[in-house]
Amino acid sequence: TNPMVTPLLTDLYQFSMAYAYWKAGKHLDRAVFDLYFRKSPFAGEFTVFGGLEECIRFIANFKFKEEEINFLRTALPTCEDGFFEYLSSIDCSDVEVYAIPEGSAVFPKVPLMIIEGPVAVVQLLETPFLSLVNYASLVTTNAARHRLVAGKPKNLLEFGLRRAQGPDGGISASRYSYMGGFDATSNVAAGRLFGIPIRGTHSHAFVSSFLGLDEIIDKALSSSDGSNKCEDFVSLVENWLVKIQGASSLRGSFGETNQSELAAFTSYALAFPNSFLALVDTYDVMRSGVPNFCAVALALNDMGYKAVGIRLDSGDLAYLSIETRKFFCAIEKEFGVVGFGKTNITASNDLNEETIDALNKQGHEVDSFGIGTYLVTCYAQAALGCVFKLVEINKQPRIKLSEDVTKVYMSVPISIQSEKI
Amino acid sequence: TNPMVTPLLTDLYQFSMAYAYWKAGKHLDRAVFDLYFRKSPFAGEFTVFGGLEECIRFIANFKFKEEEINFLRTALPTCEDGFFEYLSSIDCSDVEVYAIPEGSAVFPKVPLMIIEGPVAVVQLLETPFLSLVNYASLVTTNAARHRLVAGKPKNLLEFGLRRAQGPDGGISASRYSYMGGFDATSNVAAGRLFGIPIRGTHSHAFVSSFLGLDEIIDKALSSSDGSNKCEDFVSLVENWLVKIQGASSLRGSFGETNQSELAAFTSYALAFPNSFLALVDTYDVMRSGVPNFCAVALALNDMGYKAVGIRLDSGDLAYLSIETRKFFCAIEKEFGVVGFGKTNITASNDLNEETIDALNKQGHEVDSFGIGTYLVTCYAQAALGCVFKLVEINKQPRIKLSEDVTKVYMSVPISIQSEKI
Repeated sequence: TNPMVTPLLTDLYQFSMAYAYWKAGKHLDRAVFDLYFRKSPFAGEFTVFGGLEECIRFIANFKFKEEEINFLRTALPTCEDGFFEYLSSIDCSDVEVYAIPEGSAVFPKVPLMIIEGPVAVVQLLETPFLSLVNYASLVTTNAARHRLVAGKPKNLLEFGLRRAQGPDGGISASRYSYMGGFDATSNVAAGRLFGIPIRGTHSHAFVSSFLGLDEIIDKALSSSDGSNKCEDFVSLVENWLVKIQGASSLRGSFGETNQSELAAFTSYALAFPNSFLALVDTYDVMRSGVPNFCAVALALNDMGYKAVGIRLDSGDLAYLSIETRKFFCAIEKEFGVVGFGKTNITASNDLNEETIDALNKQGHEVDSFGIGTYLVTCYAQAALGCVFKLVEINKQPRIKLSEDVTKVYMSVPISIQSEKI
Repeated sequence: TNPMVTPLLTDLYQFSMAYAYWKAGKHLDRAVFDLYFRKSPFAGEFTVFGGLEECIRFIANFKFKEEEINFLRTALPTCEDGFFEYLSSIDCSDVEVYAIPEGSAVFPKVPLMIIEGPVAVVQLLETPFLSLVNYASLVTTNAARHRLVAGKPKNLLEFGLRRAQGPDGGISASRYSYMGGFDATSNVAAGRLFGIPIRGTHSHAFVSSFLGLDEIIDKALSSSDGSNKCEDFVSLVENWLVKIQGASSLRGSFGETNQSELAAFTSYALAFPNSFLALVDTYDVMRSGVPNFCAVALALNDMGYKAVGIRLDSGDLAYLSIETRKFFCAIEKEFGVVGFGKTNITASNDLNEETIDALNKQGHEVDSFGIGTYLVTCYAQAALGCVFKLVEINKQPRIKLSEDVTKVYMSVPISIQSEKI
């Protein structure tokens, strides 16, 4: 999928070894390598295997371009011409890959993939395969763990593009978070590439970019069914705000709300009356954001639209979500808007597995979690240590016996392990 | 540089905000955003700014393709046609960027970049800029910290491709590690793209793929100056091993060495007589790897070649490097090979800032450090929290005042801060 994944995306030593094998006439020796990890990440009991499809794609297209060979000549100037002719000729038609299906739960010291073929060629696959599997499996596992702790009914949104390891780190993160059980991503490019649902509304900057309601020039809004038109939706919102301020069940919980925020919400609702979701913590969640949201949502309701909900991006998410839910329920009761109490609450401030678990223990009213940094960087453990080990050459078993007993690995025959692809 | 960096590599909310601005007729409002971070990473006092060149490249080429607009139409089906026509028309010719030079040491709450332009357009730059700057600055800083702790004379090699966040995570890691003060990378693609020196020799698999010396068929090696040819380099190596085993100053430190390892080293030396560097810890560093290396190195010396050195990838690196250095010095003295005592020692097992610092405190004889996982994943802190904040719109100051005082940020006028690009 990524045009930067080429046979040169590998460590130089794969080429120097290939040359040494070639010089020794050993390059066609039939070798078997196992790809496995020694320990599940995040102090957990399982890993979810990701990246296989990209590995298959990689070997299906494995072929050196002329300019790549030319670069290798400059990188390895003492190698003989015959070696570069050999490199030009190779593909992976003689490589067999056996693997556990992508998305499976996998365990330490059991091979995820077994790769058999000419030793020089299979060695060239080591770094790309590890690069494609390590992070993919790590973030898929991380996403699955977030799903487990959040529970099935919650909506999980991946928001990590800006904190990932550069552009493709972000695209991989979105893809594998979805595989690990997330519902959607904010990453438009990933949505386009992989068909992942994409989500997003507005940021704090949008809210603070408005100075007041008089900035809104086009105030008209047609009703949902097109049957009528409100010429001054801004006044409708203002009227609702006055009604909420005067409601006996809400009296005293807030006074004047922030007008720049109200203008931003109203403006956003005019642009997206069908999918109004407001970020309510730019100024003060309970004294401004939530009442402003409700005023706009009730005005939309008058026009036949159902507001989606709010997003909290700071503060005590358990407390604020519970207070917001109470407010929504009071609105439902006070103004007889059926279902308003169930309006969606999204939370998104530096969330991770532990904070969601803590929220669950405290009790909360969050319906959707937007998770970024901790998900995509796998902050709790930033790397999965997949390795690629030679286990057999020319039918002879080969394994490096480490002095560290925790690293000792027993290979088992291919035939009983996994399906050939 | 990365073809995946397109105007779609952004969060969906940038587009929904752009539409809301456009609907409100505010999209051309002149806005100023600051890009800054709140805290230096790794509990440190500085950050090195990386990613600016890629940001400049991004805005220089910022233009939507027709198929990208078509995708956005499906993603935002309720938006009016006029908005997509507007998107098709925009570029960054009306955007001004002021920035601190890339590679500078930078500090919390001081803008690295100030971006001024039409609010809808600048907002579309937020996610790509953060994605290009956050990880770049983080890994550059991490590399610089490794350089500081290792000291100037040491050779620092980046070996992280297989543990990075997928392919482009690895390429970014190599590029910015080099900017942060590393000397070379193992990543061939990064070497090609950015002209970074590339390094690499062989892995454990290469060593264990050999069964014994009889596998070596072509045993001839011409001397460095081409004046003579050794028809049986294998025997020359074996003779040297016997001499080392019999040397009084080394007597008793080892017995029989591993023959598969000796075959691998000999084979590698035949392929790369000018740049022989051996990984010596496949079996036993002091009883097999180092003596085998020395036998091959002394045979090469007979033919006018100077061996480069050894690599240690496991065990107690301080102890093993010191013992290896003693062995090299004993060889120099015993056989009168001037300079042999200074043969390079590279270490590469899960190294990071702390382990290098600990090695320094213990004392060691390592000349080069190969650093992977901890460098590229920025394990100690996997994300830099750069943010992109609206500070001014239509000449009016705007800033979100957080309830968390540690987040409060004071913007200062552009003119005194940084150079316009």
